[in-house]
Amino acid sequence: MFKKSLAALAALSLATPAVADVLVDNIAGIRIDEDGEVDRFTGLWIDDDGRIKQVLDRRDKRPDGTTYSVDGEGRVVIPGLIDAHLHVMGIGFGALTLDLSGTRSLAEAQQAIADFAAANPGRQWIIGRGWNQETWGLGRFPTAAELDAAVADVPVVLERVDGHATWANTRAMELAGVTAQTKSPSGGRIERLAGSQMPSGVFVDAASELIYSRVPAPRPRERDLALQKAQDILLAMGITAAADMGTSLEDWQTFRRAGDEGRLKLRIMSYAAGVDAMEAIAGPGPTPWLYDDRLRLNGVKLYLDGALGSRGAWLKRPYADDPGNTGLPLQNPAQLRNLMSRAAMDNFQLAIHAIGDAANAEVLAAIDELAETYGGDRRWRIEHAQVIDPTDIAEFGKYGIIASMQPVHQTSDRLMAEARLGPDRLDGAYAWKTIADTGSRLAFGSDAPVESPDPFAGWAVAFTREDADGQPFGGWRPQDRVSREAALAGFSADAAYAGFADGRFGRLVAGERADFLILDRDPMLASADDLRDAKVLETWIGGERVYRRRAD
Amino acid sequence: MFKKSLAALAALSLATPAVADVLVDNIAGIRIDEDGEVDRFTGLWIDDDGRIKQVLDRRDKRPDGTTYSVDGEGRVVIPGLIDAHLHVMGIGFGALTLDLSGTRSLAEAQQAIADFAAANPGRQWIIGRGWNQETWGLGRFPTAAELDAAVADVPVVLERVDGHATWANTRAMELAGVTAQTKSPSGGRIERLAGSQMPSGVFVDAASELIYSRVPAPRPRERDLALQKAQDILLAMGITAAADMGTSLEDWQTFRRAGDEGRLKLRIMSYAAGVDAMEAIAGPGPTPWLYDDRLRLNGVKLYLDGALGSRGAWLKRPYADDPGNTGLPLQNPAQLRNLMSRAAMDNFQLAIHAIGDAANAEVLAAIDELAETYGGDRRWRIEHAQVIDPTDIAEFGKYGIIASMQPVHQTSDRLMAEARLGPDRLDGAYAWKTIADTGSRLAFGSDAPVESPDPFAGWAVAFTREDADGQPFGGWRPQDRVSREAALAGFSADAAYAGFADGRFGRLVAGERADFLILDRDPMLASADDLRDAKVLETWIGGERVYRRRAD
Repeated sequence: MFKKSLAALAALSLATPAVADVLVDNIAGIRIDEDGEVDRFTGLWIDDDGRIKQVLDRRDKRPDGTTYSVDGEGRVVIPGLIDAHLHVMGIGFGALTLDLSGTRSLAEAQQAIADFAAANPGRQWIIGRGWNQETWGLGRFPTAAELDAAVADVPVVLERVDGHATWANTRAMELAGVTAQTKSPSGGRIERLAGSQMPSGVFVDAASELIYSRVPAPRPRERDLALQKAQDILLAMGITAAADMGTSLEDWQTFRRAGDEGRLKLRIMSYAAGVDAMEAIAGPGPTPWLYDDRLRLNGVKLYLDGALGSRGAWLKRPYADDPGNTGLPLQNPAQLRNLMSRAAMDNFQLAIHAIGDAANAEVLAAIDELAETYGGDRRWRIEHAQVIDPTDIAEFGKYGIIASMQPVHQTSDRLMAEARLGPDRLDGAYAWKTIADTGSRLAFGSDAPVESPDPFAGWAVAFTREDADGQPFGGWRPQDRVSREAALAGFSADAAYAGFADGRFGRLVAGERADFLILDRDPMLASADDLRDAKVLETWIGGERVYRRRAD
Repeated sequence: MFKKSLAALAALSLATPAVADVLVDNIAGIRIDEDGEVDRFTGLWIDDDGRIKQVLDRRDKRPDGTTYSVDGEGRVVIPGLIDAHLHVMGIGFGALTLDLSGTRSLAEAQQAIADFAAANPGRQWIIGRGWNQETWGLGRFPTAAELDAAVADVPVVLERVDGHATWANTRAMELAGVTAQTKSPSGGRIERLAGSQMPSGVFVDAASELIYSRVPAPRPRERDLALQKAQDILLAMGITAAADMGTSLEDWQTFRRAGDEGRLKLRIMSYAAGVDAMEAIAGPGPTPWLYDDRLRLNGVKLYLDGALGSRGAWLKRPYADDPGNTGLPLQNPAQLRNLMSRAAMDNFQLAIHAIGDAANAEVLAAIDELAETYGGDRRWRIEHAQVIDPTDIAEFGKYGIIASMQPVHQTSDRLMAEARLGPDRLDGAYAWKTIADTGSRLAFGSDAPVESPDPFAGWAVAFTREDADGQPFGGWRPQDRVSREAALAGFSADAAYAGFADGRFGRLVAGERADFLILDRDPMLASADDLRDAKVLETWIGGERVYRRRAD
């Protein structure tokens, strides 16, 4: 089926005829029906507008004549997966950043830096991260001169693996105006060359800002590149649609350029980065669905608290490992309600970040108050909803509140969460099943680039609560696992519903867009381990093949 | 043909079937051919995508069968008119502003204000202009209390006819924080109530800013309304496309909302308000043509000088009526070239405001320098090009420079220009024909809302150089008249060419969009006076009837 090829297949070679019906036949199709049960089918008949005309059973008559046929060769087909919470541009910019975390010597790092510069001509700055002079066996910080030896003509700035130091080349220091006369700022230190006042090229803690403050905002062309990169990554992982959580005006313009030029393949449900961005992007209400259901500004992302790891999550009682601290809300009650009203009065959807139990209680209370004024189908979203006081959980069942949760966070956070919360406050932590049982709808996502956007990892965690190493055996608080089918719905139909996209995409049913994946295995039968290893062979969006896996 | 109706015809009632060909037959069609000659035709066969399929002569066979036919009843059809320089949102906001210039008493003004408030519910502020206590026979300024008597609950701010005083109601003064303690700013005066320190409600000169600085920027909904108003005005006048000179990001988002929602009828060729807006709107290069050729960000509008009336135009020698003053450039030579390069390097089109002969010489010199680096089809535009040193005029013939000129400005400015320039500097003033004879292309416009956008007024001026009163008889400097046909081209095909729209719209030829007008008279035979009175009976854009004149 696949030809060996060193070059990535060009987009054109993926194209299916745009003006004819398409029949994808001889497949082992899997979908989740309205009752949450697996339904199997063998063919998809797709209209020339990219919508499903008919889901075909073995017995159904196939269309004949002018239809373009694709032989699935018996392979597994599932709905395109949807990530209900990620950061599209963050994924793209992250992928465009030089990663030095694998380098084992200064020389190897220098080579990687030079290679990266050669592979990325025209960059205004080269940005990277991950270096560690200890793993290099250097026994000292590297110098600007050593970085100049790799790249001298373009400014380079590289963050140490722990984020607490920055390595810059001479060009970067020149642009930042850093000289022997520059004093270390409070909370930071400029490293100096031995026996000299000359900055050595490494800036510790707050001193890093001397360099980073001069890194220009990305240009539109770089944003376009980042979006392309993010799309490439997501399509290859089987993500056909995603909620972009915190879309800036610049992000939005990037999405629109891609849409205007026919480069937007991924479906993006956007949530503006605050109410000002919301108004600047969409004006007096949510945008229409644009580009054949590929882009819509649904609403606004608001933050009520921070994260558990940094003890910024707002808790009802102090942190178990920091008794004087409860975290704190980023908005007072009036501010939160004002922002929510400003969005809701113009029919924008609310997606509110709440991690701690106090934050979740406050958002639930605010929704309870506002739901009276702003009725109808609102689909209030709470993003993360990580720690809920069990006495508050029932509230999720009211007003059709959506819990937008990220299964992999549970495995990444487990030990940290136990430390932060203590043993007697875990009942409402990452409580997927408990929340779902209230009648709330679970929308699953990854929070990429904070975690990998790989949806198969999230899916496997969702029904096991075990990490990639199978720990803890039997699952952490396994009563909050969801079924394998419910997890698939959380990563498809329910994630679409959470973004007002039901009826458009998310299900393999007649009338919805033909977004689907061809896989190398049956995800309903695979072990959790095998599911994590599932390979996406092809990704189709709107009846068009947008990704095909290269032969290994 | 027309039914009497008090209500404006709703847009829906104008609709022609979208899925069938349309034949507009039995018309007295007029178009300008490639040689600038009038060509007459009798029918237009329009494709279902709104493009002209065939321009039909009396002898040509008509399509039959499924085509939707419109009987033109022998009426005159001309190409849709294109304004090469106006301000779309300015026209709309101007039309939404209360106009008191016709009121003859305070009581009449109060009634007009109250009526306006009632007709415009939901306005955050009521803004108006044109009052004059002298024509009211009041003998004193009006007061805030007298304004409160008309509207008290919404802040009201009204500019005096000469722009040198502002009348505010109590609510506006409260919002501005103006009290008895507020001091008059330098260059301005707060009027006070007799025998009191209380502000009376009138603010003179710089004091007006105390109020105006509190008027909020328009909300998106108000912008949408302004665009709708501007479209209504322009379509009724026979303008089917326009270059928007100085599009802000907010303007652009308004245009896009209209496009996304199918409300954009007018074709808009946008020139961003500076290079930052250009990048924010379009990113790394001009946008594609959007919405079936209804919107494109072509390039950027820059300013090199001011206007002749306020002596801001930059002249080579001092003003005849102000011997110490030559006006001045708003950019130095390096700044101008930097801005031009920043746009040209990303293939944005340049449209540079230059009024005085020094400004024009400088833009011509800058183009001469940049044209070497930025080759190809650039269509450098000089906006206004009002006063050119005769020794510089030949430069217009190089590099395909476009002179974007506004015929009506010539009649409005005539006496003022004679005063500013003196008798011996008029040879290159409003020198349409002389510029055209160099090989430059003339693109005609109105600069609305500075002047009325009525293209028939501009057309009549272009071949007469007489004002609406026929003054001066025979035309001012008649050697710079252009032919009636060339004037029509300047308001259609050449205005399209100036916006890179040739091949898309601007001509009634097969393959271009079917943008045309049905008129009540033959503009090629009418006297200039009669041409000014021409009535647009119908306006069609892209094969769709978008305006129909109500029966008188």
